[in-house]
Order: sequence, then structure tokens, then C-alpha cells
Amino acid sequence: MPKSSKTSKAAVKPVVAKSAKPQPALRAIKGGMAKPAAAPAKAMSQKLAPVPADDAPVIALNLPPAKLSPAMAAYFRKCQDKLGFVPNVLVAYAFDMVKLETFVAMYNDLMLGDSGLSKLEREMIAVAVSSQNRCYYCLTAHGAAVRQYSGSPLLGEHMMMNYRAARLNKRQRAMLDFAVKLTAQPWTIEEGDRERLRRAGFTDRDIWDISAVAGFFNMSNRVASATDMRPNTVYHSQAR
Amino acid sequence: MPKSSKTSKAAVKPVVAKSAKPQPALRAIKGGMAKPAAAPAKAMSQKLAPVPADDAPVIALNLPPAKLSPAMAAYFRKCQDKLGFVPNVLVAYAFDMVKLETFVAMYNDLMLGDSGLSKLEREMIAVAVSSQNRCYYCLTAHGAAVRQYSGSPLLGEHMMMNYRAARLNKRQRAMLDFAVKLTAQPWTIEEGDRERLRRAGFTDRDIWDISAVAGFFNMSNRVASATDMRPNTVYHSQAR
Amino acid sequence: MPKSSKTSKAAVKPVVAKSAKPQPALRAIKGGMAKPAAAPAKAMSQKLAPVPADDAPVIALNLPPAKLSPAMAAYFRKCQDKLGFVPNVLVAYAFDMVKLETFVAMYNDLMLGDSGLSKLEREMIAVAVSSQNRCYYCLTAHGAAVRQYSGSPLLGEHMMMNYRAARLNKRQRAMLDFAVKLTAQPWTIEEGDRERLRRAGFTDRDIWDISAVAGFFNMSNRVASATDMRPNTVYHSQAR
Amino acid sequence: MPKSSKTSKAAVKPVVAKSAKPQPALRAIKGGMAKPAAAPAKAMSQKLAPVPADDAPVIALNLPPAKLSPAMAAYFRKCQDKLGFVPNVLVAYAFDMVKLETFVAMYNDLMLGDSGLSKLEREMIAVAVSSQNRCYYCLTAHGAAVRQYSGSPLLGEHMMMNYRAARLNKRQRAMLDFAVKLTAQPWTIEEGDRERLRRAGFTDRDIWDISAVAGFFNMSNRVASATDMRPNTVYHSQAR
Amino acid sequence: MPKSSKTSKAAVKPVVAKSAKPQPALRAIKGGMAKPAAAPAKAMSQKLAPVPADDAPVIALNLPPAKLSPAMAAYFRKCQDKLGFVPNVLVAYAFDMVKLETFVAMYNDLMLGDSGLSKLEREMIAVAVSSQNRCYYCLTAHGAAVRQYSGSPLLGEHMMMNYRAARLNKRQRAMLDFAVKLTAQPWTIEEGDRERLRRAGFTDRDIWDISAVAGFFNMSNRVASATDMRPNTVYHSQAR
Amino acid sequence: MPKSSKTSKAAVKPVVAKSAKPQPALRAIKGGMAKPAAAPAKAMSQKLAPVPADDAPVIALNLPPAKLSPAMAAYFRKCQDKLGFVPNVLVAYAFDMVKLETFVAMYNDLMLGDSGLSKLEREMIAVAVSSQNRCYYCLTAHGAAVRQYSGSPLLGEHMMMNYRAARLNKRQRAMLDFAVKLTAQPWTIEEGDRERLRRAGFTDRDIWDISAVAGFFNMSNRVASATDMRPNTVYHSQAR
Repeated sequence: MPKSSKTSKAAVKPVVAKSAKPQPALRAIKGGMAKPAAAPAKAMSQKLAPVPADDAPVIALNLPPAKLSPAMAAYFRKCQDKLGFVPNVLVAYAFDMVKLETFVAMYNDLMLGDSGLSKLEREMIAVAVSSQNRCYYCLTAHGAAVRQYSGSPLLGEHMMMNYRAARLNKRQRAMLDFAVKLTAQPWTIEEGDRERLRRAGFTDRDIWDISAVAGFFNMSNRVASATDMRPNTVYHSQAR
Repeated sequence: MPKSSKTSKAAVKPVVAKSAKPQPALRAIKGGMAKPAAAPAKAMSQKLAPVPADDAPVIALNLPPAKLSPAMAAYFRKCQDKLGFVPNVLVAYAFDMVKLETFVAMYNDLMLGDSGLSKLEREMIAVAVSSQNRCYYCLTAHGAAVRQYSGSPLLGEHMMMNYRAARLNKRQRAMLDFAVKLTAQPWTIEEGDRERLRRAGFTDRDIWDISAVAGFFNMSNRVASATDMRPNTVYHSQAR
Repeated sequence: MPKSSKTSKAAVKPVVAKSAKPQPALRAIKGGMAKPAAAPAKAMSQKLAPVPADDAPVIALNLPPAKLSPAMAAYFRKCQDKLGFVPNVLVAYAFDMVKLETFVAMYNDLMLGDSGLSKLEREMIAVAVSSQNRCYYCLTAHGAAVRQYSGSPLLGEHMMMNYRAARLNKRQRAMLDFAVKLTAQPWTIEEGDRERLRRAGFTDRDIWDISAVAGFFNMSNRVASATDMRPNTVYHSQAR
Repeated sequence: MPKSSKTSKAAVKPVVAKSAKPQPALRAIKGGMAKPAAAPAKAMSQKLAPVPADDAPVIALNLPPAKLSPAMAAYFRKCQDKLGFVPNVLVAYAFDMVKLETFVAMYNDLMLGDSGLSKLEREMIAVAVSSQNRCYYCLTAHGAAVRQYSGSPLLGEHMMMNYRAARLNKRQRAMLDFAVKLTAQPWTIEEGDRERLRRAGFTDRDIWDISAVAGFFNMSNRVASATDMRPNTVYHSQAR
Repeated sequence: MPKSSKTSKAAVKPVVAKSAKPQPALRAIKGGMAKPAAAPAKAMSQKLAPVPADDAPVIALNLPPAKLSPAMAAYFRKCQDKLGFVPNVLVAYAFDMVKLETFVAMYNDLMLGDSGLSKLEREMIAVAVSSQNRCYYCLTAHGAAVRQYSGSPLLGEHMMMNYRAARLNKRQRAMLDFAVKLTAQPWTIEEGDRERLRRAGFTDRDIWDISAVAGFFNMSNRVASATDMRPNTVYHSQAR
Repeated sequence: MPKSSKTSKAAVKPVVAKSAKPQPALRAIKGGMAKPAAAPAKAMSQKLAPVPADDAPVIALNLPPAKLSPAMAAYFRKCQDKLGFVPNVLVAYAFDMVKLETFVAMYNDLMLGDSGLSKLEREMIAVAVSSQNRCYYCLTAHGAAVRQYSGSPLLGEHMMMNYRAARLNKRQRAMLDFAVKLTAQPWTIEEGDRERLRRAGFTDRDIWDISAVAGFFNMSNRVASATDMRPNTVYHSQAR
């Protein structure tokens, strides 16, 4: 224990306090009880504890934040209210409102929109894909989501470490086998792979969703790795 | 080694001819006009030349097309007018308007929006990434785009086959080295890699754009491979 | 294996309470010995709660437990006293006293014996190597150890997810680069690699220790993966 | 997405025009007729259109051309007459008549000699193998051959990009699966792999031929990559 | 480690004669009596170009030998008596008696102790694993052991070069398939892999032993590669 | 290829004995001048279990031998006279005289013809490449050649097991680094790699030769692996 981690203790504290209320992640946000006003990014930084070294800067690129659009300002406030923080991926994209809004739109549709896959299943794909790509940001943020949605800290660890170690039902195992193969060797996916999903009970629309979520995290993993994106430290202790 | 190439002339012709008209798959959607059970494919085939086997169906999933939203109907018309066809990736996403619109929004911002990277450079990244992932759809569609933007059929082939064989300037070589490394081993990208881009003249915003485009095609490659998405055959002969 | 980690005690406490009863696998072993003197393990079994499904059975091989040798019985008691549980890897090896004792002897010398590497550094190697090999058992048990020794939950996560994301000093980075390269492509290690360690301040004896620890976990990862060894669930919540 | 492709027309033209004339590199050799110290490259450039940057020099090694043997002089003339050019691979080997002649003899036997495989099938193997090895020269030259023999520009693209995307019959699919596995992991080929070919209708002699063609391009791909061999630019526009 | 391999004595003889004297590195440990160059190498050097000392120093780390413990001194003498030399791996570990003794204890239990696997089978695993990891030390030392135990120089070569080329019975093939998969991709081992071993006739205890031996050589290969450990040259000519 | 290999029945002894006699396939062709058996292996073979016939049939394809052309009959006789046997690769190709003759012509030019590389260096490349490809036939036959040309059994083992373990001069190390990189990832070879060879003293012609030899064995390795080609057992004991 050579390391004195006094500074990080403090930083973690509010997080721990916050994490006492398990929040159902982004679902809560969608509820959308718009709180009024406040200048977005600025107001936030006044309210938040000093950022621990690990997640500052949020990315390794020097991109001055843009003025949040009204929609995004409202969205950030909603995150703050419901989650207690704004996910750093949003902070990272906030240098450009078009990029932020298209990212948020695609993310929310894929991960929170209507689908034959449960939200937990989509998060499981997110983490298994991110594990294949060894993406620190996404493993952290979505590992927490798996823990929260499932209520099982173990499941989060399995997805992060090696999804094959989890005791999954056939459906979820087939889903993750497909997503991880698609991640590692996309050029080898063929009709036989889709057939395996159908035999596990997935519809063609489900197959699209599995593919789209796996694809999305193959994108996000790379944006995060390319920019050294740092997850909010609060994630680490959530739902343990 | 000597072979006469006379016989192949005829074969190429029909492809070009066909490409002047919208493909059948598209037309069902483009109509937007919910012809209920009115066997849309049939109606189409009466008006059009037979569909070449290679791009029908557009994807290997059975996803009934949705009614195009006004924005998307207009966009498809614009494609038809300017390109002479609607890219099959749009046809593929047209089973769900939210998914189609978010995809189009992200795509157009990344590939056509304001950036320190030229449109050609963004297409070069698209093809080099898709080559790493051996994605038939994206290599075809974006290979054509590289040929068109550059006016160089050679450059398109280089990007498709092995970008290292192209005689690129330092800037573009550094850009593609980063994008391909990010594709193949995203977990190994570090500050040194970003520094190499900066030394080649890229700004931090440029680095974001390189990363975002590379990330986007890592997503698209996987959606395309997962669904066996077929490119419009017209691409193959474009700008040769 | 027992480590005195005073600060972590508190964190572990609730866990200890939960794990007040022996895991089934351990109990099975204990049962195996119809000996009167077998009190210590028995005492344990009275205190422990039912085991969650995830770590039972401890391995996927049916190997009847042997009678613990006096030395090993004492060692298991010590684990129980100091840690509040017996690590499942010990339970797994307990079908054969020679195998258990040689494993314990090598483990304790490598991980707890005299070395120019701190105990934390040795655990960091253990986790980075286990991450390369995606070993569920070792990531779990030694991830907890990194958290405990460092007092930094973050460092544990970094080692598990991608050690390159951690903000390490030169020494520790060089150490992990060597250990992970040795894990992934041992045949490519050459004098240049050792020289890099020397330049980072390591002695030749340190280089042996880095190699030996990395080697040891390449062994343990494989024994654990081959047998589907399950970590004590208590690890997951330790030192978060 | 819409882009006008008008600008690319002009660019393609010169390539086609040029292809009607022998390339400079060839001419030095084709002379074969000992122009002694007549600074070959220079002399050539006086008579011909400027060499397109992409295929000059033919290789990145400075190997002065040898005097063509009578057999090779005749062969080069035949190439010129039938193809309109001498393939650059021949130009590359022409620094040494023994090497050129043995290469030509092996090539012609394998690719044009008697076999249970059609010439098209042999070219399909050539391209699928070259795609696995990402060989710019061979993909270009043999991609053109697939287009010519098959009359299908599509088939050429499939072989180049990802043979799994082609809609092949069982025989051809089995043939390419074997050739590509043999390319990527030759040490894993076993009786089961040969049996799969036999079940797809291949004789033992056919299996030899598949292996020999795949082997040959594993050689050629490496000679081409090692020397940065550049394909005649004329190939790119052939049989599109 | 000492094995009585009577059959191989004859073949080994000239070698044994040469190796009747301690190697330089060992000598340092045993007595430190700096004798000048031994004769045998000299004799050789009269016929051939001077042979570089392939196995000196034994490792590329400067680790002064410790005084041998009585047990280890006896063990080294036994090696010398039975084998005619002390294996360099023991010389390498002899800088620290605890490390040497724990290594010897684990090695002897695994490779020479009671098991459902024959000693030859354990050596076959050692070599197949070491071939996957391209470990010069272990291939040399254990390749010799396979030749000795089997009386088949061929089998040693098969294990070293590509175990798939050996004509093995089902049992031994299944055993090596498992060991090599466990070496190359330990994270993919699952119940199906264990089931395949059971179907080939292995008990659960046998599966442990296969795993433990494969694991052990994954450790030893890495210690050897990390330290550039050099095998006693005598191995090369043993039992040919 | 006659499949009956009567002579191979009796263990190791016949290996040496056999080597004096024509192999079955060859015998059909050749006169069959029996040389007296060598003594040494005899003692061993009396004690050992019967060894399976490792090199019969020569390949796993049923290809009836063709009548040897006069040139090839003379060549086979020369092999028999000089080597004491006909290399099985020649027996394998002897089903077709054109294939046999072109193979022999290319082989002899590359491996025995004029070059800035010594014959030993070319054989070193052959073995290092074959080790990368884990080719049993070529490792055996050319491993023997390295031992013979160098007079160093050690060098043969180094090339087979891991060329990085050999203590090579700069020239030979650079040569093998190039050849092995060209084998493993041909698409990554660029001018920098050629420059490294030039700095190590190689001419452009030498670079061609390194590439051509490496290329040739990438072909031969695959033909051998595809057909399960078996090396003459005599190789194993040569020049030990």
C-alpha cells in the first residue's frame, strides 16, 4: 500500500455518496423532467467536485467546447439531475453541436429505443465488444450499466473479462458469439452465423439490432481509444 | 499469359445501362406510398431491367420497408437526381425512419461537413479501413467515391488493395497509418500516435475527424458484413 | 497468499460477513478428511453463507479432495483468519497435496518473497498478463489485490481493461510492456527488450522477477481457463 | 452523398490511350537486341508518352535488364501482339534469363496448362490468395484476368475484396476456402480439408492443382511485395 | 529431472563423454574453479570453424550463483551421474535456492510423478507447447526427452515442427489439440474442449494433468525466452 | 506414387538402411543400386517398438507416377548417386514431367545458381521461412541442408526453432528478419525494409535473391502442407 491516495479519496467520496442511489442509467434520463435553465457547461463545472487526475482531461485533444444548443443544454441538465454527472463521452463530443446531436440521437435510438433486445442485452453486447477491443472508456461506462440493469456485479465482470466465463442462456450466448465474431473478424460473417441467431430465437430485426449495437461500439471504442477518452470516475464504484 | 479480352466487352455493357435507372429495391421505398400488399417488387420489375443477382436482396435480413418520412423521401429523390440511384445502404436502413435519419445525419456530417480533411481524404480513410475489414459493400461504394473525387482510378485501387502501395505524401500516409492501426488494434493507440499526426501537420480537430471517420467505417463495415449488404452494381463501373 | 492489508480490512468486512460459511467446494474437501483434528476448516463452515452460483463448483473437473496435510491445513486456517476465506485456487489444487504445496511454495516466493519489485508491482504484472490471456479467475482475484495494495480502485480497473490507459511512471510502464510482450509473443523477446528494462532502472535480478511473475501467470491463467476455475465471489467487491 | 462524377472521365482516358503502346520499361528489354550502353530508360522516354508515375520503375530494385534470349524475345513479342503490352512481372524478371524462363515456364504450365480446373478457376484462386496477402501487383493483374475470363466485372471485385461475398457454387467455394486457409495457416491443413475438396467433386489431381496455384501466388505475392512490383496501369481499366 | 534412458545411452555416448565435465556456467556454481577451456571443444575446433559457445552464458542476466543447499547439491550430483550433465535450467535457477527448489519440486511432480499420462505423453505436451511458443531452450531439452522416451527420433521432430504432421492415435492427438489451443488462445477453452478429452478416454484427473503440464511449459517457455536461456549443447545430439 | 513401402516397417534402423536403398516410388524409376546398410542405428532398432512408416506414402494424394523424361531420369540417378536417395519432393512432382522439370529448374537456379548469397544463407532462409509456416517437409529437408553446409548442427536447430536465438552476424540477421517478415506479413514490406538490407551490405540483386528464396519456400511450404508431403526419413539423422 505504498500509495497514498488521499486526493482520490476525496474525489471518490461524492461519487460514493451519489452511487448510494442506484440510477437506471440513461433510461432515467429519458423520463425527461426538464429542469429549468442554467448556463450549461459552466454551471456544471461550478457544481462538480474537482476532477480526479484519471478523467482529466476528458480527451487528449485540445478542442474548445462549443456553446451547447438548447436541446443539448437540456439533455446535459437531465443527465446531471438523473445521473449526478454528465457522461464524459458527451463532454468529449461537445466541441461541435452537430456531432454531439447526431451521436446522442444514434446512441439513444440504439440503446434505449424500441427493440426485441432488452436494454441489458444491448449493454452486454456493448461490453463484450469493448472487451474484445480493450476499450477503457466503454468497458468502464457500460460495465457499470450492465451491473445496474442486471443488478449483478458479477455479470458486469464477466462481460468485461471474458463473456465465455458467464453462465448465459443459449440466446444470450449466441448473441454475444455473433457480436464478438463480428468485432474480431467481420469479413467471416455469413448466412450460417445469422442462421445460428435465428435458431436461438432472434428475429431478423433482432439480428439487425445486434449488428447495429456491435457496430456502434466498434465505432465508439475507436473514437475513445483514438482520443484517450477518460470515463467519469464515478462509474467505477457504481452498482458494485 | 496472353489472353484476348474481347469477350468481356459485352458483359460490361448491361451494367452501365442498368445503372441509369433506380434499382427495384429502392423503388419500393422511394414510393413511400404505402401500397399495402400491392406486391411492390413485382410492380417494379415490370418497369425495370431484371435486377442483377449481386445486389438483390439488398440485405440478407427480411425487414419490410417503412414509409419514408418527408425528409427522407426528399433525400432519396435527391440521390436519384444527382447520382442516378439511391445507395443501397440507405435502402437497407429504410425499414426504420429513426435509424435511417440518424445514420444519414451522422454520415453527412462526417463525410461532407466542414473539416480540415478534404472529402477525398475522408473517402481514402473509408476505403483503407474497409480494406482492413474486407468489407465488400464499403469497398465498392467508397472505392468509387475515391475514384470520383480524385479523378484517379489508380488511387481507388490502391486504397482497396493495400494503401501502402500508393505513393502518398507524408500527410496522407500518416493519416492512413493512424486510421488502419486504429482499426486493427485500437487498444494500442497512444499519445505517440497522435503526435505523429501532429507532426504531419494535422490539428487536434483533424485528429478527431480522422478518428471519427475511421470509427464510423468500423461501424458501417460491421453492419454491412453482418447483414450481407450488397452495393449497387453501378458503383463497380463508376469513374474507371 | 495471505497479505496483511490493514486499510482494506474495512472494505472487506461486509464481505467477510457474507462469506461466513465455507464454499461448497471447500467443504467437500474438508469432508474428505475423516480426521478428528480437522477442526479448523469445520469451524469455517459454520460461519459461511450459501455460495452464489458463480463459484460453484470451483472447477469443472470432478476431483475428490485429498486430506489436507498439516502444513496445508494450517495454511488454509491462516487464509481463513486473515482473508476471511480460502482462495479458490487453493481449493482447486487441494485434490493432491504435492501439487498444492508446490503451487503454494512457488506462489508465495514469487508474489510475497524478497524482490526488487514491490508486491503491488508484482500484482500489476499478474493482472496485465491475465488481461492479455482474458483469464476470469486471475483477473478477479488479482484485480482485487491491485486495488488493495494500491488503495486505488482505478489502478485495478486499468490493469484489467488495458494497462496502456493507466498513467504509469516509466518504470512501471516498461515493466508491463515487457510482461505483456512476453505473454503475447515470447519468441520475439531479445536483448533490446532487456536493455529497455535496464534503462528504466531494473537490475538483472528484477528482470528475472518480472519474467518469473509473468511466466507464472501464463501458467496459472491456463490452468484456470482449462478447468473453468471460478474465483471466490467475495473478490468482486473488495477494495472498490 | 450525391456527387457528380463528371470530372473523372478525363482522368481515365490517358490510361487507356497509353495502354496501346508498350511501356518504357519493357521497351528496353523488348529491344532485347543489345542496345549496348544506350542508356535505355532515356532512349525510351524519347519515343513514348511519359510514364505514369504508378508503374515506373517496375520494381524498387536497380537491376539492369539482361539481353533477352531468343525464346523470351519471341515471348515478349507475343505478349505485345496479343495483349498490347508485356506484363510487368516479366519485365521485372528480365534481368536474368534463367530466372525469367523458369518463371514463365512454371507460370504457363500452372495457369494455362492442362488441368481439371478451368483457367478462370485458377485465376480466382490467384486473386483470393493475393487478397489474403494484400498484394497490389497480383490483385491488379489477376483481378483483370478474372474479369476477362468470366466476363463479370463483379466476380473480379468479389475475389479482390472478399471472396466470401461472391455467390459461388459449392465447388468454387470449397476451392477458395482451401486456397485461402492454405495461404493464411498452411500448417493447419489436414486430411479433413482434402476430403472436403473431394466431396465437392475435385480429384486428387485437382487438389494438387489448387495447391500448386495457391502456392505459386504465395510466392509471387511475396516477390512482388518485396520488390514493390508495379502492375501495368492498363490492367486497371480492362474488362470493367 | 534425471531419467534413466538406457536405450539412448549408446546413441548419446560420444556426447556424454564430452559432457562428462561440468559446463562452465555450472562449474562456477559447483566449485568456482576456473579451468581453462575444456578439451572437447578444442578437438572440434580443429575440424571446423570455431564453434561459438552456444550455451554460455546460460542466461543473459548476470545473476551470481548462490551456494547450493544440501538437497540441491545432491540433486545436481545425481543429474551429473545419471545424465552426465546438469540441465542448464537448473543452473539458471541456482542463483536462489528457494526458486530452484520450488521449480524442481513442481517440475518433478508434474513430469515424473504419478499420472494417467505416460512420461512420454507429458514430454510430447511440453514440446508441442514449446513449439507454439517457439522456445529454443524447451524445444531442445524436451525434444531430446521425446526422442529418448519414445525411441523415435521422428516423433521428436514432429513435436518440434508441427505436431499435426505426426501420425498419432486419437488419444494423443486430442491431448495435443487441447494443449496447443490452451497455449494459443486460453480464453476460448470451454466445456466442449474438456468433453472432447473425455471422449478420447481421459479422466478428469488426466485433464488436470494435461492442463498443468501445458501451463507449466507456458511458464517455462517465457522464463527461458525472457532470459535467453541456452540449452546444454549435448541435447542436440541425444537419441538421434 | 506407389503406396507400398515395405522397407519402412522396421523402426529406425531401416531409416538408415532405407536411405541406402531407393524408396518405393523411386525404385520404379531407378535401377536400384543397393548400398550396404550403415551400422550405428542398428543396435537401437533391436530394442525399440516398430516405428510407423513416416514417409509413405510420399503425399496424401493418389497421383500415379509418370514415365521420367530422360533429363529427369538422369537427374534422379544423380540424386541417388550423390545423396544416396531421391528427395521426396521430386518423387511427389514426378506424376507430371512438366511440373517436375519446371520445379527442378527453378529450385536449382535459386538454391544452387549464382548469387551474392552463399548456399548456406539460402538454406537458412529456407528453414526460417519454413519455421514460420511450420512446414514439416521443408524443415526436415532444409534443416539437414543447413547442418551440412554449415557443419553446425546447432545452426540447423536455431533456424528450425527460432532464428532469433541464433547468434548471427548483422548481415544474416537482417536477411532473416526480412525473409520472415515477408513471410508473415508481406503487405507491410516497404522501402525501409529494403534499406535495412542495403545497410547490412546487400546489393539490390541480393535483395531479389532473398525475396525469391523466401517466396519460393512460401510456395513449397504450401504445396507440402496441402499434400501432406513426407520428407525422406534419412534427413533426420544427417549431419547431427
